Amino acid sequence: MSTPSEQSAARPEPVGPVDSSRIPRYAGPATFARLPRLDEVGGRTDVAVVGVPFDTGVSYRPGARFGGNAIREASRLLRPYNPAQDASPFALAQVADAGDIAANPFRIDEAVETVQAAADEILDSGARMMTLGGDHTIALPLLRAVARKHGPVALLHFDAHLDTWDTYFGAAYTHGTPFRRAVEEGTLDTDALSHVGIRGPLYGRKDLTDDEKMGFGIVTSADVMRRGVDEVAQQLRERIGDRPLYVSIDIDVLDPAHAPGTGTPEAGGLTSRELLEILRGLAGCHLVSADLVEVAPAYDHAEMTAVAASHTAYELTTLMTRQIAEARDGTS
Amino acid sequence: MSTPSEQSAARPEPVGPVDSSRIPRYAGPATFARLPRLDEVGGRTDVAVVGVPFDTGVSYRPGARFGGNAIREASRLLRPYNPAQDASPFALAQVADAGDIAANPFRIDEAVETVQAAADEILDSGARMMTLGGDHTIALPLLRAVARKHGPVALLHFDAHLDTWDTYFGAAYTHGTPFRRAVEEGTLDTDALSHVGIRGPLYGRKDLTDDEKMGFGIVTSADVMRRGVDEVAQQLRERIGDRPLYVSIDIDVLDPAHAPGTGTPEAGGLTSRELLEILRGLAGCHLVSADLVEVAPAYDHAEMTAVAASHTAYELTTLMTRQIAEARDGTS
Amino acid sequence: MSTPSEQSAARPEPVGPVDSSRIPRYAGPATFARLPRLDEVGGRTDVAVVGVPFDTGVSYRPGARFGGNAIREASRLLRPYNPAQDASPFALAQVADAGDIAANPFRIDEAVETVQAAADEILDSGARMMTLGGDHTIALPLLRAVARKHGPVALLHFDAHLDTWDTYFGAAYTHGTPFRRAVEEGTLDTDALSHVGIRGPLYGRKDLTDDEKMGFGIVTSADVMRRGVDEVAQQLRERIGDRPLYVSIDIDVLDPAHAPGTGTPEAGGLTSRELLEILRGLAGCHLVSADLVEVAPAYDHAEMTAVAASHTAYELTTLMTRQIAEARDGTS
Amino acid sequence: MSTPSEQSAARPEPVGPVDSSRIPRYAGPATFARLPRLDEVGGRTDVAVVGVPFDTGVSYRPGARFGGNAIREASRLLRPYNPAQDASPFALAQVADAGDIAANPFRIDEAVETVQAAADEILDSGARMMTLGGDHTIALPLLRAVARKHGPVALLHFDAHLDTWDTYFGAAYTHGTPFRRAVEEGTLDTDALSHVGIRGPLYGRKDLTDDEKMGFGIVTSADVMRRGVDEVAQQLRERIGDRPLYVSIDIDVLDPAHAPGTGTPEAGGLTSRELLEILRGLAGCHLVSADLVEVAPAYDHAEMTAVAASHTAYELTTLMTRQIAEARDGTS
Amino acid sequence: MSTPSEQSAARPEPVGPVDSSRIPRYAGPATFARLPRLDEVGGRTDVAVVGVPFDTGVSYRPGARFGGNAIREASRLLRPYNPAQDASPFALAQVADAGDIAANPFRIDEAVETVQAAADEILDSGARMMTLGGDHTIALPLLRAVARKHGPVALLHFDAHLDTWDTYFGAAYTHGTPFRRAVEEGTLDTDALSHVGIRGPLYGRKDLTDDEKMGFGIVTSADVMRRGVDEVAQQLRERIGDRPLYVSIDIDVLDPAHAPGTGTPEAGGLTSRELLEILRGLAGCHLVSADLVEVAPAYDHAEMTAVAASHTAYELTTLMTRQIAEARDGTS
Amino acid sequence: MSTPSEQSAARPEPVGPVDSSRIPRYAGPATFARLPRLDEVGGRTDVAVVGVPFDTGVSYRPGARFGGNAIREASRLLRPYNPAQDASPFALAQVADAGDIAANPFRIDEAVETVQAAADEILDSGARMMTLGGDHTIALPLLRAVARKHGPVALLHFDAHLDTWDTYFGAAYTHGTPFRRAVEEGTLDTDALSHVGIRGPLYGRKDLTDDEKMGFGIVTSADVMRRGVDEVAQQLRERIGDRPLYVSIDIDVLDPAHAPGTGTPEAGGLTSRELLEILRGLAGCHLVSADLVEVAPAYDHAEMTAVAASHTAYELTTLMTRQIAEARDGTS
Repeated sequence: MSTPSEQSAARPEPVGPVDSSRIPRYAGPATFARLPRLDEVGGRTDVAVVGVPFDTGVSYRPGARFGGNAIREASRLLRPYNPAQDASPFALAQVADAGDIAANPFRIDEAVETVQAAADEILDSGARMMTLGGDHTIALPLLRAVARKHGPVALLHFDAHLDTWDTYFGAAYTHGTPFRRAVEEGTLDTDALSHVGIRGPLYGRKDLTDDEKMGFGIVTSADVMRRGVDEVAQQLRERIGDRPLYVSIDIDVLDPAHAPGTGTPEAGGLTSRELLEILRGLAGCHLVSADLVEVAPAYDHAEMTAVAASHTAYELTTLMTRQIAEARDGTS
Repeated sequence: MSTPSEQSAARPEPVGPVDSSRIPRYAGPATFARLPRLDEVGGRTDVAVVGVPFDTGVSYRPGARFGGNAIREASRLLRPYNPAQDASPFALAQVADAGDIAANPFRIDEAVETVQAAADEILDSGARMMTLGGDHTIALPLLRAVARKHGPVALLHFDAHLDTWDTYFGAAYTHGTPFRRAVEEGTLDTDALSHVGIRGPLYGRKDLTDDEKMGFGIVTSADVMRRGVDEVAQQLRERIGDRPLYVSIDIDVLDPAHAPGTGTPEAGGLTSRELLEILRGLAGCHLVSADLVEVAPAYDHAEMTAVAASHTAYELTTLMTRQIAEARDGTS
Repeated sequence: MSTPSEQSAARPEPVGPVDSSRIPRYAGPATFARLPRLDEVGGRTDVAVVGVPFDTGVSYRPGARFGGNAIREASRLLRPYNPAQDASPFALAQVADAGDIAANPFRIDEAVETVQAAADEILDSGARMMTLGGDHTIALPLLRAVARKHGPVALLHFDAHLDTWDTYFGAAYTHGTPFRRAVEEGTLDTDALSHVGIRGPLYGRKDLTDDEKMGFGIVTSADVMRRGVDEVAQQLRERIGDRPLYVSIDIDVLDPAHAPGTGTPEAGGLTSRELLEILRGLAGCHLVSADLVEVAPAYDHAEMTAVAASHTAYELTTLMTRQIAEARDGTS
Repeated sequence: MSTPSEQSAARPEPVGPVDSSRIPRYAGPATFARLPRLDEVGGRTDVAVVGVPFDTGVSYRPGARFGGNAIREASRLLRPYNPAQDASPFALAQVADAGDIAANPFRIDEAVETVQAAADEILDSGARMMTLGGDHTIALPLLRAVARKHGPVALLHFDAHLDTWDTYFGAAYTHGTPFRRAVEEGTLDTDALSHVGIRGPLYGRKDLTDDEKMGFGIVTSADVMRRGVDEVAQQLRERIGDRPLYVSIDIDVLDPAHAPGTGTPEAGGLTSRELLEILRGLAGCHLVSADLVEVAPAYDHAEMTAVAASHTAYELTTLMTRQIAEARDGTS
Repeated sequence: MSTPSEQSAARPEPVGPVDSSRIPRYAGPATFARLPRLDEVGGRTDVAVVGVPFDTGVSYRPGARFGGNAIREASRLLRPYNPAQDASPFALAQVADAGDIAANPFRIDEAVETVQAAADEILDSGARMMTLGGDHTIALPLLRAVARKHGPVALLHFDAHLDTWDTYFGAAYTHGTPFRRAVEEGTLDTDALSHVGIRGPLYGRKDLTDDEKMGFGIVTSADVMRRGVDEVAQQLRERIGDRPLYVSIDIDVLDPAHAPGTGTPEAGGLTSRELLEILRGLAGCHLVSADLVEVAPAYDHAEMTAVAASHTAYELTTLMTRQIAEARDGTS
Repeated sequence: MSTPSEQSAARPEPVGPVDSSRIPRYAGPATFARLPRLDEVGGRTDVAVVGVPFDTGVSYRPGARFGGNAIREASRLLRPYNPAQDASPFALAQVADAGDIAANPFRIDEAVETVQAAADEILDSGARMMTLGGDHTIALPLLRAVARKHGPVALLHFDAHLDTWDTYFGAAYTHGTPFRRAVEEGTLDTDALSHVGIRGPLYGRKDLTDDEKMGFGIVTSADVMRRGVDEVAQQLRERIGDRPLYVSIDIDVLDPAHAPGTGTPEAGGLTSRELLEILRGLAGCHLVSADLVEVAPAYDHAEMTAVAASHTAYELTTLMTRQIAEARDGTS
């Protein structure tokens, strides 16, 4: 059920979320933010929210295959106006729920290909992607698809972990390795790669030197506490500049207090307030697509992880639609 | 995503559930049993699975407003062939998910009217209803709609509680009173009213004598243990005969061990195996519609209540489609 | 059943529970079954429900110190008429909540003395005790107090475990040893001692032979399944005869499915329906007092253990008040 | 601090909490902070802690009807001396637990009237109210009662949400509308209205402009992080001045990490440390009454929400008793 | 920490579990039943309890990779004498914990080979295997290893599901296909194949006919209720005869009430009491090895699933050691 | 399974954790950080991680007896390089898991003696202790043992509570009294005693004055927020100087949001990031041993408390091994 607005002349007015003053939030199907399905807007959208229920790349607690739908369920609470960015994202451009990509749970390589093909198709349609994982393995095919369209992109990576390891048990494609692969494959612009929220033990000092050689800069979780979100956001913006930007968020960037529902929790993480404020500080960046991964609902409580994730995806979506609107008509 | 089968000549082949060998069960939206939405089958169906997210009639733990969607989520695990009834219910007749009825959470009387109006519409379309609550208040408007179509119906009521009380806090429409109201309103055939699974303390002996005067027979939970499911089912079938039958199931008929996710739990209840076997024993009855209520997911664990509820709705749906098919072409 | 009743001539009419048609069940303080406090009925009662928040005698998972209040909280759902025994227990005799006995958590011996002294006082007042544990250690001082008043009593002990072990870590008073101590101390009538629900591994065959030498008969959990509750209850009644009877129920007699909230769970246990039916089958026995122990709420879910416990205590209380009424005026 | 104290000449010494060095904290009934019931102090108190188990005004997750008793249960851990305010609140003035107001769960309008009448009675007795919800609907009748006694009051409102919306589903009295109603009814001093902790999406920019027109100032959750608790508290004190002040706290002002047990969680919230410190910074304000609402225990974990709420109510109670003592004899 | 007993002449006395009267059950590492590690008994044992933490073959909820260690943790509660079989299993023969087989989580085929190689090695040492899963995929390599030693074996398979499906998403080795593969590979004696506990929907009637053609007989969960455990056990024993027997137990054979902690729950299942009693009824069968799979602790509550699983493995272990002892010296 | 490194000439190279690129983290037994057992390194170690499963000194929620093993389980996620301290702790010196001390759960005094004797033995072997509780009672015997070796030590105590109370229920040894006892016994250097993280209500102002008289300085939780971790750490370092230092950490120093799994939660606590950063700020101090207590897993969720505890123990272990290495060869 959608709230079709009055038509504006040139382009169709975006179809927004279900009106929660008439249909209670807990009623009806759980599309992201109660937005229309892609088929309800004629198969064309400016931003496609798409799920990738896949978690075979996980090295510890699996379960992120249920993450996307959990985020959608929690996103029932989102409302259409974002005061922190002073924007109504779903009115600025069409955002629609494109459903899930059906990835093979038994064969990682095949799943990676499936995700890439589906992402190519979505990006080719002119949409940006707001992908809901799934585990972090999927960042690799998503970056392939993004780079195929935009060339090498700047990467802003929120995570407790570097995810630039090489292989696990001989496997090249896992949730701990996507960004090394991406650097190797040339899909990243190595002048603008940042990790934010890093913390916790590593295998060795070489993890850091390897990572640095690939071009990454690190803002640790403790850095965020010491320097504050505004300074961090400014530094990130400067590093990104006007490059096409991909944002990849592992929900474990948040402290387990804020995001227990994940597979490899690390103490000492960001608060959800910090994460949201840093994202809001990215206004003006050219955000071409984003993913949000590693929500494992079996370990969540009272949907707190999924709620934080839904707010995170909402800020990312707002950034995208604002920029689309600005590019289109100079308003935001 | 549906699996359109080959067309038979006269009537369209029913559209069945998503093929889980191609799309993993955890992927995609959670319609009941992964069946098509009502709009995907042209707005016409033989059995409509419909949610009523409403729980303002609850006297103890609220939360059943989230019940219908929880059952749908758990129903991802259902498969298309029911060996216990030797039938493929979704091939025998069209079953579709008709979404939710948006009932006002702040005004019970208005909600009751909304549900009745929506039920009238569905029944008028020729569909039978498999309603997912919500709290037991909704049985009243559902029975009104059913009786409007079929005349007074036989009632088979599975519950820990009688639900034939008069008023609570001056309110006539609550989850403890629907069947007294229904008897008063003449929507029930008082020669064929049965409670199954009754147990636990009452307010006074008069609760029982009042109930009996309304025409109800009682099979207690202990009776089921002592007499066995086959004898109980046979007795129920005899009492129902060939009357149009409405089945109303409060999930608290199950023991809290099997259904912790409910609002007024009582120890000493049925096992899910007993409930399912009794329902299977109703084959041949003229089941015109059914409801399943009082699943409160906030109190559930690992979806066990919702899984039991999804199996229960599956058996009911199978009973309906078998009878539709028999009425149509003598097969089941 | 309502709060302060009109006085009858000879004896004061019992004060019953709060009227839940005027005060919602979830409102107000959680006395057992919303009954009056002992001080609200002038300090005199026929049956005293008393808590013993003590769990220092526990050998595995502690937490039963919170058990009594959890049972009281769950008992909000109890209503005043017990159809299974066709009696309104709180109208037959006064039942009141006598609060908790404050036992020292750091010194078992002192706690045992405190419980015994408090129990002596309650029994001396003419009341029977329905004690809510706490761990099973407390059965020892309770039996001392009961035997001080009644002489050696018949014991009906529902439990997964024998609780006739000798010592743990040199301690004579623990939750695994009360009945050996009681036999040694002569507070039990060794012609009428029964365990019901026993199952699970032991330390050695000698556990069984020792137990038998003390006079115990055993009805295993599997026996209950094979023979049925009616036969078991009849056998127990025969063994008990007209002796003064003490019933001690460890909630772990129930299967973990029915009672996860306990400290030493064993698979293969009774259903709550079986336990309640066996208790109902004890009508006519001379039940002088009872305890219900080992509810550990930290391991409970959705109050299912506490609900089962509250129903169990309700049946026991009904047995006591029926017998009090019969002894008084031949009615029940 | 022990129970019945020696009488001082002029006024009776307040009766304090149960002595936890003699009665373990987990023993006995759960009045707030183990304080005496109102009837135990002769029906007169300086501060009445009162529950309002009502949640029919809730638009998403219900369950706050169980909130007050959950806070009381968690408040067993409170001790009598508050070092953060250097005061023994329960010695400065009498604080007593006045039990629950029995509000009709099926009729919001009647419940609002019931709450108002009960609040009038308590305030007329000379007591201030520390009300434990229940949902935020109850702030409306509470403000009516407070304004009836004090005239329009300053409002300090801690919440993730504005709660100045107009209607939901045609209902004027819900948990999202109390402060718009209160402004309309003239019970608030519109020169001194503040929201603290606001965050998350709204329906539209008009929500903010409407709110501002009513007179509200907003301190967002991000403001608290950026500016610090001391600056925020100072600004609030300045705005409040010496007006009679009402504080209304929706527990969802805390981040879901700190308060998962609530009905409409929003990421990015306050820490409990921030909330407590801001409250402590209100010393000197003329706090005439307060409420604490929206604790929904079914979604809580390990009582963390209820513990935070109990500490919050403790700080508010300390503020009230300090001011009572200062007004009385110039000490605090 | 083990309790080395006095040496008997001919063979070394088995080393039993840690003495829980000296070392509390909750202390020390969690080997199965607190038995010695394999290296503590010189690398030789009669029965090896071995874990296979692998769950990549799962089609719905993953997490069984944590199952084996959860069962070990719950097995702390096991004691050394099994009264139901009147045997002290760990005294009849050496049982030791052989630790985990490290299977590659990212490549199913490699994992299958790893498990097979490890099983070959254990069986070649003369030990029987009591394997703790992990998901049901592992039954395939285990049966290969068993058949390599014993030739085709009789299979007794407890499960809600047939697990004789062909492929999922093109994968031949998954948790739904091991027994079809095993029949194809000739590792099973097709004259003695039984499923017990089957229930729930299937894909089509062909699932049953295929299964029957492979040689399986089915005892449904409802059959167990109707016919009783003794009759079922007798029928199974007759079918098995004196063939070498492999028992494979998917914990989802239990009802979700008894085993919520699993990946594909189905309502209407066995009670743990039924499962244990049927197993006890297999005394005399030639049980060469067994597995217990699909315990997914993330969905468990209060270890109830793991406790049931530990008791199940204990009965199986007892069957094996009794038979070893009988073969050795005619005692049990 | 350990990864024995090549031998260096003078001293044996420390044996480090299991290699998680070959053996998945979830496989194998849960020693701390997957380090070798003490017996696997010949009974000699530089730092011994030892559990004390004892919680009989607890005044509210028990359950910390399961704490040590829960921390070990969560510590599977730790990796061998600590970037925050730029050190590979397990390569700098030998760290081994020394198992659990078996303390009598029924007799506090005996348990205190057992712990002291075991600690004496470990310290006499030349190892430092990283003790995992258990409740805070155990700090007393641990300090006795440490002082026996080092003389009175500086104490850095992280806790919500002072733990310098005198007695509870007449017991001198409880979890609320260890540091008063230690001061009385002369095991502490009263010139360098600090509490960090203190908050929440006390019994009276005298609690503070007594504490101050014993020599303690207090850094409250609010102080940490206001002054920042760096200033706090610097102040602590200055107070400690080059004295031998004992660090005792009650996990309830963390906010319940970060550590719900504990027995006496207080709102307004530290974040795990703050705790970890303060600990890292202690580099250079002469840390002779440490304990980490009061993790009660029954109240934990998704291991978040145990994960925070494992990281805390990891930082402490790193501090110790760095100092050992520095003392040995001037490197860190």
